[in-house]
Amino acid sequence: MHLPTIRLKPGDPRVVQVLDQRKLPFEAVMVDLCSAEDAADAIRHMLVRGAPLIGVTAAYGMYLAALDEHTSDHFAYYRQAEVLLAATRPTAVDLFAALERAVAHICAFSTREERIAAALDLAQTMADESISACRSIGEHGLGLIEAVAARKGAPVNVLTHCNAGYLACIEYGTATAPVYLAHEKGIPVHVWVDETRPRNQGARLTAFELGQAGVPHTVITDNAGGHLLQHGMVDMVITGTDRTTRCGDVANKIGTYLKALAAHDNGVPFYVAAPSSSIDYRIRDGLKEIAIEQRDAREVRYIEGQHENGVGEVLLCPEDSPAANYAFDVTPARLVTALITERGICPASEEGLLGLFPEWK
Amino acid sequence: MHLPTIRLKPGDPRVVQVLDQRKLPFEAVMVDLCSAEDAADAIRHMLVRGAPLIGVTAAYGMYLAALDEHTSDHFAYYRQAEVLLAATRPTAVDLFAALERAVAHICAFSTREERIAAALDLAQTMADESISACRSIGEHGLGLIEAVAARKGAPVNVLTHCNAGYLACIEYGTATAPVYLAHEKGIPVHVWVDETRPRNQGARLTAFELGQAGVPHTVITDNAGGHLLQHGMVDMVITGTDRTTRCGDVANKIGTYLKALAAHDNGVPFYVAAPSSSIDYRIRDGLKEIAIEQRDAREVRYIEGQHENGVGEVLLCPEDSPAANYAFDVTPARLVTALITERGICPASEEGLLGLFPEWK
Repeated sequence: MHLPTIRLKPGDPRVVQVLDQRKLPFEAVMVDLCSAEDAADAIRHMLVRGAPLIGVTAAYGMYLAALDEHTSDHFAYYRQAEVLLAATRPTAVDLFAALERAVAHICAFSTREERIAAALDLAQTMADESISACRSIGEHGLGLIEAVAARKGAPVNVLTHCNAGYLACIEYGTATAPVYLAHEKGIPVHVWVDETRPRNQGARLTAFELGQAGVPHTVITDNAGGHLLQHGMVDMVITGTDRTTRCGDVANKIGTYLKALAAHDNGVPFYVAAPSSSIDYRIRDGLKEIAIEQRDAREVRYIEGQHENGVGEVLLCPEDSPAANYAFDVTPARLVTALITERGICPASEEGLLGLFPEWK
Repeated sequence: MHLPTIRLKPGDPRVVQVLDQRKLPFEAVMVDLCSAEDAADAIRHMLVRGAPLIGVTAAYGMYLAALDEHTSDHFAYYRQAEVLLAATRPTAVDLFAALERAVAHICAFSTREERIAAALDLAQTMADESISACRSIGEHGLGLIEAVAARKGAPVNVLTHCNAGYLACIEYGTATAPVYLAHEKGIPVHVWVDETRPRNQGARLTAFELGQAGVPHTVITDNAGGHLLQHGMVDMVITGTDRTTRCGDVANKIGTYLKALAAHDNGVPFYVAAPSSSIDYRIRDGLKEIAIEQRDAREVRYIEGQHENGVGEVLLCPEDSPAANYAFDVTPARLVTALITERGICPASEEGLLGLFPEWK
């Protein structure tokens, strides 16, 4: 139905292919990953992005590592591959959780062939788990949209930041899953799409996938959401998360915190679609304990788009102006109305999360 | 010392020249305005922008109208010119106040020659008043920066949104005036410059003028300020205003409200540099009474910048994605720590403003 975000290369199962999301919406190009190094580069350079997809790509990276296994100390070998893949991006916890799980799973097998099979099986299992989690998040979130539709009539206006759609995952997306399910069910829904500077994942990716699916949407600048919230033009905010602490603090794309403040100030619910893969139950305080990635200032100073002769970059500021590029911020739990997980909706608190995930006690 | 934002054309006092700010920082071009229609176009198409400069440009537009006066009913003639110039942009009150003042002033004279002289005199007087008001705002605001420097040491980190610099005025700027005076006095100050989508007046204009003046600054996306405020990297926020109500609500460039929320949430002072020309003492409730301009969606969907072969636009989103473009938002007085006016600093309240401007009682 839509472009695959990651897959085995048709006809060559020793190669993994990812959709190069840096080129969307202007070009759709699948790129071959032939080694763990390739997978690390794809994560680092953001051919793939979005916490769930980063996790699955890392698992496929361990499969590519397995294909190249060449030492008698396979435990050390996979630890090394883990270090390589972990050193790509610091914020999304899915990456580290996927790698830890992969090493433990793969190293439990005694032959190289078994380890290759186990690595591939785990990557595919994690992809399937992501699809299942997103579907469940969609079903739980659908009730929230239905309740608004029943109360105030259509359309239900959802504001989202960045891209937490299928492009950030495998299927459905996290924040977009309730929207897609509502749309499929015939409930009129309209999405305000924050463009999400500096990399414009909203304007480039969320607008693209909503457009492909026929979901009504409007692209806005990141500055506009407060005004819309003040004037009753947003019924709910739904975002994804790159890492949620056991107490409900949410690290997500830079600017999420500003929208949470505005939602709170106007009594509009602010929901975070949080698959358990993105919850870091080992930490509590998001502001103190989550590493915030700083990326190249070039991403702020330049922007890419389509011109008459193709796709290219333009400089946005004086040539000698410095810039800073913080990629994420942390929204404190007190501003999050609820978390939408694959097991249900819960308050953004330790008690709320442990109610759904008692195994973390 | 720097580019003039508006002036009589050297050698031809029947022509007004403005700096075409749409082309900065990549080109510096002065454009001739030969009629009131030209002045209206310059405001509408944002060759000039910024509330104080819009007001002064409107006054010069009335001077250009005076040069063309051609009817026996001069009162009707100037009312018509007022309507023409007022229909350009709805939010900044300086525009309407300047026009009202100009009509009353000009029409009090009985000969055409006197009216021309009066119109020019008023435009120049208003430019001088703006310079004086900005200088005074700078002196009052300087004390706030000095107090931070004395308490925590240098540099003092100021965050600003949009451009409320000399380019929005004639000289000094409003929000930037305290920064320039601190810099001149040798107090180390550093400015976080919100790029200010969609038209990027921060990245294009504020970064340009701070760079020219040698003031340390860093361009950031509009999304980044919340993170900086959470982490103690901002000592104060200072913005300009397009219209402030008698109760202290502030309409300013879209996104200002989000920064005010974040400053409030982190206990960081949020100051608005408000020359009295931008205070609308006839209204109270900014959210209900201030018209918010909606501009062409093209400004969101496309962005202009410099590429290898010149300056051009690129498309940022899918070709068929709709966009919305709200140009201003309203920051409620409760989020404004204080207003910095030419008469001093006061609480953002009717009582505070009337203490400095008792003539509005």
